[in-house]
Amino acid sequence: MLIHVDRDSDVPAYRQICERVIALVESGDLTPGERLPPTRRLAQSAGVHRSTVLRAYEELWALGYLQSRPGSYSTIRRPMHVVNADAEPRSTIIDWDAATRAALDPSAWAPPRPDPGRDVVDFATLSAPPRLTPVDDLRRCMKAVMLENGRELLGYGDPSGHPALKDALVRRMRIHGIDVAADEVMITNGAQQGLDLVLRLLASPGDRAVVEAPTYAAALPLFRLHALQLDAVPMNADGMDLDVLSRTLDAGSPRIVYTMPTFQNPTGISTSHEHRERLLRICEERRVPIVEDGFEEDLKYFGKAALPIKSIDVRGTVIYLGTLSKIVFPGLRIGWIAAARECIQRLIAIQRASALSGVTVAQAAVARLCELGLYDAALRRIHVSYRKRMQAMLHALAAHMPRAIEWTRPAGGSTLWLTVKGAGANEGVIAERLLRDGVAVTPGAPFFTTASADAHFRLSISCVEEDAIEEGCRRIAASVYNPHLP
Amino acid sequence: MLIHVDRDSDVPAYRQICERVIALVESGDLTPGERLPPTRRLAQSAGVHRSTVLRAYEELWALGYLQSRPGSYSTIRRPMHVVNADAEPRSTIIDWDAATRAALDPSAWAPPRPDPGRDVVDFATLSAPPRLTPVDDLRRCMKAVMLENGRELLGYGDPSGHPALKDALVRRMRIHGIDVAADEVMITNGAQQGLDLVLRLLASPGDRAVVEAPTYAAALPLFRLHALQLDAVPMNADGMDLDVLSRTLDAGSPRIVYTMPTFQNPTGISTSHEHRERLLRICEERRVPIVEDGFEEDLKYFGKAALPIKSIDVRGTVIYLGTLSKIVFPGLRIGWIAAARECIQRLIAIQRASALSGVTVAQAAVARLCELGLYDAALRRIHVSYRKRMQAMLHALAAHMPRAIEWTRPAGGSTLWLTVKGAGANEGVIAERLLRDGVAVTPGAPFFTTASADAHFRLSISCVEEDAIEEGCRRIAASVYNPHLP
Repeated sequence: MLIHVDRDSDVPAYRQICERVIALVESGDLTPGERLPPTRRLAQSAGVHRSTVLRAYEELWALGYLQSRPGSYSTIRRPMHVVNADAEPRSTIIDWDAATRAALDPSAWAPPRPDPGRDVVDFATLSAPPRLTPVDDLRRCMKAVMLENGRELLGYGDPSGHPALKDALVRRMRIHGIDVAADEVMITNGAQQGLDLVLRLLASPGDRAVVEAPTYAAALPLFRLHALQLDAVPMNADGMDLDVLSRTLDAGSPRIVYTMPTFQNPTGISTSHEHRERLLRICEERRVPIVEDGFEEDLKYFGKAALPIKSIDVRGTVIYLGTLSKIVFPGLRIGWIAAARECIQRLIAIQRASALSGVTVAQAAVARLCELGLYDAALRRIHVSYRKRMQAMLHALAAHMPRAIEWTRPAGGSTLWLTVKGAGANEGVIAERLLRDGVAVTPGAPFFTTASADAHFRLSISCVEEDAIEEGCRRIAASVYNPHLP
Repeated sequence: MLIHVDRDSDVPAYRQICERVIALVESGDLTPGERLPPTRRLAQSAGVHRSTVLRAYEELWALGYLQSRPGSYSTIRRPMHVVNADAEPRSTIIDWDAATRAALDPSAWAPPRPDPGRDVVDFATLSAPPRLTPVDDLRRCMKAVMLENGRELLGYGDPSGHPALKDALVRRMRIHGIDVAADEVMITNGAQQGLDLVLRLLASPGDRAVVEAPTYAAALPLFRLHALQLDAVPMNADGMDLDVLSRTLDAGSPRIVYTMPTFQNPTGISTSHEHRERLLRICEERRVPIVEDGFEEDLKYFGKAALPIKSIDVRGTVIYLGTLSKIVFPGLRIGWIAAARECIQRLIAIQRASALSGVTVAQAAVARLCELGLYDAALRRIHVSYRKRMQAMLHALAAHMPRAIEWTRPAGGSTLWLTVKGAGANEGVIAERLLRDGVAVTPGAPFFTTASADAHFRLSISCVEEDAIEEGCRRIAASVYNPHLP
């Protein structure tokens, strides 16, 4: 084997030897099974130190061109070639269906988004309102915290969340009557991961859980991912039917009761203080944790509403989920959990094991936004805007809707719930026609665990301007009772 | 009931009525059970419209001061009071131990951090190197993407990750011979969440999984969280013992094989190309997915090393985990998974159900960093620095270590592995004394599933400057064989 080493080259000698051997193997001039020359001999013939040859052989071994570690009996081999995805069909010998142990929900719900190009009044999207979102404020806060403390904020963070944001959220919760300490709070990747953590802690596959009917549509695939059996308790005009709840809790042994007492998603219904007390007592008596999803706690723009259940939870029964996603920056994924210290400690252990931490720098930027009063300022703008939108909405529905259509009258929040009696089977058809007629709504089926006799639609005011609301309601009225309806 | 309404007040009339009734109830002048005056009568006596009184009564009901919805027979009640955490003992009636279904690991491993105030050579911390991390570049990229596209980036994002970052990572993986399409990749909240998603997809409680012994310490609490039985296959000088692996796979039916072929954490060992081929063949034959953790793929600063197993994975057996946390910004939690499309689709479904999405704006900023070549520039600086550090380390160990201590000689990466034969029982004592003597190391026990006869210590070069390395090794040598060692 003749190998020439160019001493003037920038390429190190050992690398030149490597590359030459690889070229000889790839060209077929060196055949798998052939023995390599002893290092001493090759060193002599190439005019390099023996250690250079040894290093080249070690490298060849690492790259798969030697059968065993360099020594007197090292023989040539040819490594498997690197996959070129363009040239080769992509295939997999793993049967992923058989390998899958998770209870995946193929129908996994994602919020419908109307085609942005068309003239569509969008009552479908439920999200922080883009126009009202303080993007520039956040950008400046992000810059400030990175300038002050970037290196630390970009290192591994606290699995329970950035301390400054925990403090800011503790202060915010006090506004709603929730008085907890910083170690009774943790930050999560949105309320969605908050619920996921709670289910990881408290539920095993096959366990039962209580949800409202209808309930938050994106919670259902998560409950299914945990392979839970759901007991769906119907919503009345005043909230979850508590007689049914009592019977349900006594009949089975659900691990949790998941509820949205304030501006429920999708119905917009808020329960009274008395309803909250009774729900709490029912769960306390049976020692079943309540998971209270306060996803729109901050949207009380019509004045005072009942305080969250967590505010009267003297016995540590309530696990409270909060989120900023319906107020500002859903993409920052800022949610939190407030619960008994014993519960929070366990949730943090799961967070540490499964994610190490969240994105600390985003949490620090939002903490700064709160500290500077910029969150409150944004919230005031949203309140002014949403109050007008909700009033316009209730007005327009009263003015235009045919008699047979019913709707809820929320005391705040951003959604209301339209019901077309007896039209459950046609819900999808109606929604499609509404979209064709220029108004996007969210059909009700994904909010239920079983089919409903009535057709339901969730209307959200979060991403529609006030002056488009009446036209949107007019379109619904004109479309929904079209004589061509099947 | 006498209620005076002040027409000149800024407080709306209905709210004045509310507040007056609440004051009467709280003072005891109105007793629970008393009937409220009919709305008409109160309207007359207070000189307001009846609808104002109705609204006040509705509000009182919501706040828990009425027994039932306002009507002729509404009676007063007194709501449960709001919890004041300072005044009341915090307690919980839920038995959280009994309620916990998760397999929580109380010993959950967190990387040890030496007291920053003292003169300690820190071989313990394994993280992106703070001094070399391009914080200012990231800040500018963050600003740029928020100015250009902030509103969209702060809205709900793609559960599979920001498209620009997926593209950037696809390009980066090509450097390492991994040729995958954008829909064979998803972004995760660090490699930790990547592994968590894979386990959620493929493993049920009680299932078996293969890990290396030793393996990544923070993976073990995660495997335990999933209640998996671990088959720990010993690491030889060349990597996982593949004969033991074959027997293990044949004896049980592990769901996955978790391996770090390049610069293994903690040992720093890299396997040869041939070892990788054989490992792949063993798993292909038995159709067991390999989870390849390429956590330091980019740290090949000593020149070319073997390509990842994923690069020769023509049959879609390998699930590749990547992360930036050992190069830049561990706190941004940027990791990713590259796997067969069928696998990625299922993993995205789990991500959507459990977290909706990651923090898109952070992903966009990192994508920009890559596009501008700033990641590569940072990586070059880290390569220059780490090369010198690792050389200094190997030098100093050879110069100072007593004979009886063994250590690995990594071909890159940031960790090496020190072994004191037969001293396993004293590992903790030795580590504590080392810290007292001014050098922080990570004890080996958390990297194993069972006790080891030898004492092991992981030394990391990621957060120690080159000129401190020799002194650190000297301190180890002086401390570890101290005659007072038990």
